[in-house]
Amino acid sequence: MVAVSADHRFDLGRFPLASGQVLEGAQLSYRVLGCPTATADNLVLYPSSYGAWPEDIDWVVGPILDPARWCVVLVSQFGNGRSSSPSNGGGWWGCGRWPVTHADNVRAQRRLLEEVFGVEAPALIYGWSMGAQQGYHWAVLEPDRCRRLLALCGTARTTPHNRLFLLSLRQALTADPAWNGERFEGEPLRGLRAFACIYASWAASQAHYRGLSLEAGGWSDLEDHVERAWLPLYRRHDPHDLLAMIDTWWASDVAMASGCGGDLAAALGRVSAAVTVMAGSHDLYFLPDDCAAEAALINGARFELLPLTLGHRAGNPRDDPALQLRIRAALEALLDRSC
Amino acid sequence: MVAVSADHRFDLGRFPLASGQVLEGAQLSYRVLGCPTATADNLVLYPSSYGAWPEDIDWVVGPILDPARWCVVLVSQFGNGRSSSPSNGGGWWGCGRWPVTHADNVRAQRRLLEEVFGVEAPALIYGWSMGAQQGYHWAVLEPDRCRRLLALCGTARTTPHNRLFLLSLRQALTADPAWNGERFEGEPLRGLRAFACIYASWAASQAHYRGLSLEAGGWSDLEDHVERAWLPLYRRHDPHDLLAMIDTWWASDVAMASGCGGDLAAALGRVSAAVTVMAGSHDLYFLPDDCAAEAALINGARFELLPLTLGHRAGNPRDDPALQLRIRAALEALLDRSC
Repeated sequence: MVAVSADHRFDLGRFPLASGQVLEGAQLSYRVLGCPTATADNLVLYPSSYGAWPEDIDWVVGPILDPARWCVVLVSQFGNGRSSSPSNGGGWWGCGRWPVTHADNVRAQRRLLEEVFGVEAPALIYGWSMGAQQGYHWAVLEPDRCRRLLALCGTARTTPHNRLFLLSLRQALTADPAWNGERFEGEPLRGLRAFACIYASWAASQAHYRGLSLEAGGWSDLEDHVERAWLPLYRRHDPHDLLAMIDTWWASDVAMASGCGGDLAAALGRVSAAVTVMAGSHDLYFLPDDCAAEAALINGARFELLPLTLGHRAGNPRDDPALQLRIRAALEALLDRSC
Repeated sequence: MVAVSADHRFDLGRFPLASGQVLEGAQLSYRVLGCPTATADNLVLYPSSYGAWPEDIDWVVGPILDPARWCVVLVSQFGNGRSSSPSNGGGWWGCGRWPVTHADNVRAQRRLLEEVFGVEAPALIYGWSMGAQQGYHWAVLEPDRCRRLLALCGTARTTPHNRLFLLSLRQALTADPAWNGERFEGEPLRGLRAFACIYASWAASQAHYRGLSLEAGGWSDLEDHVERAWLPLYRRHDPHDLLAMIDTWWASDVAMASGCGGDLAAALGRVSAAVTVMAGSHDLYFLPDDCAAEAALINGARFELLPLTLGHRAGNPRDDPALQLRIRAALEALLDRSC
């Protein structure tokens, strides 16, 4: 068992966003697992993925990140309902888009590490999915402060098809009668059911469902599966937060955030960190091809394919010790590289 | 140019369904392209795909099916708004499911061929997507009347993941405020937008969108793309018909329809037709692996992969002469086989 501190709150005050807009009274919620050394040279930054709360993803500390060695700072990204989010006073932009980008997450996290831990450059950034996106933004926007990055099942720029998936989630949720064109009035349960179903169909792979033995049943078996295994993951969130995180994901693009005018090669060419990119063979929205193509643009980056039918979720193997070992091995190899 | 007759109507009268329910005043709408020989031994049956009307898919006659040689009978499947459908008096089952299955389509088409054309066994059945599903049902349920089948991008049994895609379409459409729990009151435009977006994300592949150069734009570019290129395909339909066709697709399963108790190998083992199965390399819901696995269960069937990034739509290459030639070549090879 890992000793878990209570979650902490880091107040950012009036926080200007890259867009020019402002988050008033901004704050980051974070969890610390393990202890920092005297020089805090064992600090690992672990930004959260879509819809994740710390308790969903802190299992990584133990199987993958040894808490006797590392001090893991698990930071909630803006929009997840713990750090500043529409649901907790973090603002709402009605019919527009949530303006927070990963550049904003990175700037806030940088302040957290400096002001709370006295650390400029963490030993490692570990991220899955939207966590990997944040890691890429660190590597491009703060090359001197990002020494090592393990990017699991994520891309530095959200691809057009990935955006189409996100658009379908957004359209489905806002198709609900509770959506008034600017916000939700009540729980959008019909929209949430569609949302969960779309998510279920993309986040695991076709091959995963082939193995689930749902085919003998009627509609109700599959509906029950989505209702039990997927809907609760999203229903627990304020629906405005679900949209906010979608908007951040959509806008994720190191080539725009870095002022490289959309030139992805130029942006990734700035990276000086040692980087290992891992992708799931059956990931349907962070495709292995896209992950590998980005890795090829990063000096010295290594790419590894995880051949698993689980799809995108392969990068978060809570219940798969063999896969945990594999990621841990990739991590050890990354740590052995000079940087 | 191919001479196109006006569409015809074949009255089935009181039509008992396999489910035990009844379609009152049932009718099939069909289009004839080309002329039958004196013995009608040149008749090709071409059942329609999801949401397709004859004018959407009759381009096949010419590039792939030579109208000087073949008499193509393009039949609208039940539910498409031309043959009996919820929108034209074909009944509606409220909060239940549309009970029409491909077994019903086959039985109705069989009567059409016999009573109008005097044909027991067409020379060929050609089908794409839900058309291929109908072709498989012909091959299994009427083995003596199905001599040759070209099945493009479809499966004999709808897979669990494909059903999840269908469920997401259904949930998204019925998330709309116009859905009262049993039917639509007015146009479900919000639901249709979500529906079109989900369809766009599944029916073409990730690689297709990689090439569309939508990535530079904001939300509006992608929304515009869906609005222009996909939404009209579904908005033109009565939304009850969209649900009806989903229900037929969902239930498609030769192993259940044939009384084989779910034993797919036993069902496909009944096929005596010469069968060629073609699948798109990037098809996301009728996966090549699933198509190939079914082909392997059919005596003597040939399987061919179409290596195209377009995804599921690869099987309906209206604007791709090279691909049309390839399908035509597969068709010629199929015709050369004894059966």
